[in-house]
Amino acid sequence: MTETRPPLALRLHDADNVVVALREIPAGAAIMDGISASVRIPSGHKVAIMPIASGAPVIKYGQVIGAASLAIAPGDHVHVHNLGMGEHRQDYAFASAATRLDPVTVPATFRGFHRPSGRVGTRNYLGILTSVNCSGSVARFVAHEVARRCLLDEFPNVDGIVPIVHGTGCGMSGEGEGYETLFRTLAGYGHNANFGGILMLGLGCEVMQIGDLVDRKVLNDKARFRYMTIQESGGTKATIERAIAAIRELAAEADKAVREEASASHLVLGMQCGGSDGYSGITANPALGYASDLLVRHGGTSILSETPEIYGAEHLLTRRAADEATGRRIVDLIEWWEDYTARNFGEMDNNPSPGNKRGGLTTILEKSLGAVAKGGTAPLAGVYKYAEPIDRRGFVYMDSPGYDPCSVTGQVASGANLIAFTTGRGSVSGYQPVPGIKIASNPDLWKRMEPDMDVNCGAILTGSSLAEKGEEIFRLLLRVASGEKSKSEAQGFGTVEFVPWQIGAVM
Amino acid sequence: MTETRPPLALRLHDADNVVVALREIPAGAAIMDGISASVRIPSGHKVAIMPIASGAPVIKYGQVIGAASLAIAPGDHVHVHNLGMGEHRQDYAFASAATRLDPVTVPATFRGFHRPSGRVGTRNYLGILTSVNCSGSVARFVAHEVARRCLLDEFPNVDGIVPIVHGTGCGMSGEGEGYETLFRTLAGYGHNANFGGILMLGLGCEVMQIGDLVDRKVLNDKARFRYMTIQESGGTKATIERAIAAIRELAAEADKAVREEASASHLVLGMQCGGSDGYSGITANPALGYASDLLVRHGGTSILSETPEIYGAEHLLTRRAADEATGRRIVDLIEWWEDYTARNFGEMDNNPSPGNKRGGLTTILEKSLGAVAKGGTAPLAGVYKYAEPIDRRGFVYMDSPGYDPCSVTGQVASGANLIAFTTGRGSVSGYQPVPGIKIASNPDLWKRMEPDMDVNCGAILTGSSLAEKGEEIFRLLLRVASGEKSKSEAQGFGTVEFVPWQIGAVM
Ligand SMILES: [Ca+2]
Ligand SMILES: [Ca+2]
Ligand SMILES: [Ca+2]
Ligand SMILES: [Ca+2]
Ligand SMILES: [Ca+2]
Repeated sequence: MTETRPPLALRLHDADNVVVALREIPAGAAIMDGISASVRIPSGHKVAIMPIASGAPVIKYGQVIGAASLAIAPGDHVHVHNLGMGEHRQDYAFASAATRLDPVTVPATFRGFHRPSGRVGTRNYLGILTSVNCSGSVARFVAHEVARRCLLDEFPNVDGIVPIVHGTGCGMSGEGEGYETLFRTLAGYGHNANFGGILMLGLGCEVMQIGDLVDRKVLNDKARFRYMTIQESGGTKATIERAIAAIRELAAEADKAVREEASASHLVLGMQCGGSDGYSGITANPALGYASDLLVRHGGTSILSETPEIYGAEHLLTRRAADEATGRRIVDLIEWWEDYTARNFGEMDNNPSPGNKRGGLTTILEKSLGAVAKGGTAPLAGVYKYAEPIDRRGFVYMDSPGYDPCSVTGQVASGANLIAFTTGRGSVSGYQPVPGIKIASNPDLWKRMEPDMDVNCGAILTGSSLAEKGEEIFRLLLRVASGEKSKSEAQGFGTVEFVPWQIGAVM
Repeated sequence: MTETRPPLALRLHDADNVVVALREIPAGAAIMDGISASVRIPSGHKVAIMPIASGAPVIKYGQVIGAASLAIAPGDHVHVHNLGMGEHRQDYAFASAATRLDPVTVPATFRGFHRPSGRVGTRNYLGILTSVNCSGSVARFVAHEVARRCLLDEFPNVDGIVPIVHGTGCGMSGEGEGYETLFRTLAGYGHNANFGGILMLGLGCEVMQIGDLVDRKVLNDKARFRYMTIQESGGTKATIERAIAAIRELAAEADKAVREEASASHLVLGMQCGGSDGYSGITANPALGYASDLLVRHGGTSILSETPEIYGAEHLLTRRAADEATGRRIVDLIEWWEDYTARNFGEMDNNPSPGNKRGGLTTILEKSLGAVAKGGTAPLAGVYKYAEPIDRRGFVYMDSPGYDPCSVTGQVASGANLIAFTTGRGSVSGYQPVPGIKIASNPDLWKRMEPDMDVNCGAILTGSSLAEKGEEIFRLLLRVASGEKSKSEAQGFGTVEFVPWQIGAVM
């Protein structure tokens, strides 16, 4: 009978010596066998489930989040009054916790589009990639005209045409970090396995020259790549006609692709959180972390990003790094970000705010762990720049801002063919050509916005386990990879969410 | 008979002591009465038309572009071998050249939409303004649904519905320069007289909160303003229905507006150059400058922008400033830009490049003058921040990058209800809800891209005068203000060119 009552508290990892209150717990209430709350515990706050000596580590997410500043008894509220940061922060202990997960014997499969590059797409779109905002309107005109003429009707294996339009590409330096970042982003979209063909469309006089993309051999597969500029083509009307002809050729080539069985090892999952709430870190994010570990065990790749969100927990990634060089790249990123924000008069301000503390977060580690929880427990196989091609399997890190569209844009450019997005407040977005699922962190969000949400991790608050939800996410990802439409995809999201990371002065 | 032959050279201002070769001039060829070229003069280069003593100023555009470093005779080629910078650069001489232009006795009129604010629109659109990229897809869905249901058919005075979608609004600091710049931009679009009604659409959890726009009284006209967030509305589908209902109410209100006669003093012209070539500075830009002066004489407002493009010629604007305080704001902008570019590892690099020099540009002043030429000769009545509301008539300056969509976005936010865009390479773009004309700098561009170009200033190379072309631009602007569609407008440009200036770190 008691099994059907929703649990009062959640233990996030077997090694934890605290649990999280899933709602307010009255003083004296039984939390688990033989342990009762010694005081009232607010929702989202921590309760000790074993004795913790003064100076001993407090463990949540299986990770040290600080040290007890007083002796703590089972049933005690654990917060700022008895938990401090301890001395752990700057001990990177490179590769000290890179424990390989057991691979499955027979990886799961999905049905995808095998590309000549060896990558496998989960969709088969045509893309109109723009080098600059100044060719964006014409790219949309071309897509509109393709639809108006029903041009793709004769190519049933093509999923559609996606104009990739953005706000940058000129009014910027033609060299340096900002230029190289945009260059990688465009090159990465050009290579994404979810595109069966790419028309690259420029204005002609922009800083980001199509010629450079061609010269640097990033867009040189003749069968699936065409390019043109509006100025060379003789203006809007002439460009549209020329583009339509190119699209017809690309469609004929792309249409040859059919879905075939592929190992889950070909899945590259971009993980993201946005519009987070107090539940994200204890429901949706760790459930996604479980799915990420599953994917890694099946031979696939999962990408953690959003550097400002992991600030303060970087030593956990350095410890999980496959080797010291990989771990050092994490430290380098953190240092770059400290400089980037400082020179822009900002700061990497991720300390628990008064609101965070009211919600039960005590230390910066604990806060960042809620985001890192998406990354599960697998060793860190690689660290990549924003939009850098990911060339290793397993759990990897790609640098990016936390800003959702910008971070996902980098992940897609790096090669992601699936997106999993956790949210507590309710984000609605899509990232064509890559399908994404939305994972709700709480039951209220699921109830309010079910037509936008794919997975209800709010059920963890009423008795589902992280493992059950992690398994559900993994199975859904396999189906979506095989062609099932996610809710955002079915609604047509994803034509304005291409947001390359703009670094540097707009000139 | 000789009148019908295209001129060999162009004198840009009555005060000039040099003229510009419109094509290659052979040694000995007659340039004008009694003056022959002493050597071969390449196209675009300068020839003296009077004796210039060593140390005396060389005048082009009616402005000192440097000092003769040798004695120069009529017919001599004037370039790096006999022209230096002189000592003029840093003498701001505030307000020393603020000569008021003669106002016309009876200003020209157009037919526009008179707004309760006292401003007059040249169009009557409904806008869906988004606070963040994360509501951009839904804004497009709403606009699409309005079209699908033919909702605006019953409101004939409404020009259409414009989703204003962008890449920022979150992942940024909630205070400081970047935030305030975006805030002004959104507020300015909300106030632009070309919108008869605005639906502001947010996600809910973004940094750029709609509540702040409402609280700060920028969007508080109940009859023409509605707002909602996707999270509060209960997701995508619910938001679309709620938005449709709001649009219907806004359309009914906007439909009450009709075109009525309005003085040209209500025109606010954003001036822009993009994809410039060697002719821009001697044909399209000075012709637009002539039109700008005409507009000022008719009581209207013209806006020069693009600070990186005027770098080096800032003292010309300080001299034209109406008073010292106005002039000092120009100097402040320049200093801000030097810091902005330096902290982003860039520079205000506007020195004539080797290519510029081959094209005939000798000094940085001369290069920047080609851009400043758009601003005519009127006194500088005001200097504004990017997207700051323009509250003075006459010729004004609004700070912005040179990057076209970003600069025009600021001008529209500042209140522009017309755009004039000069181009040599051929830019194609639009800026809904504000109509813009394209002005071609050379006959080849006109020939190649006439369906995209509204005015052929290339005709100046074959005998038309700057005054004739300036008058033509002014007359066309009056017609477009009254409802005539410009070529970009007729083609549907302008739904992706909203590019707010993103300043600061993406977090
Ligand atoms: Ca986040
Ligand atoms: Ca995010
Ligand atoms: Ca320019
Ligand atoms: Ca300097
Ligand atoms: Ca420009």
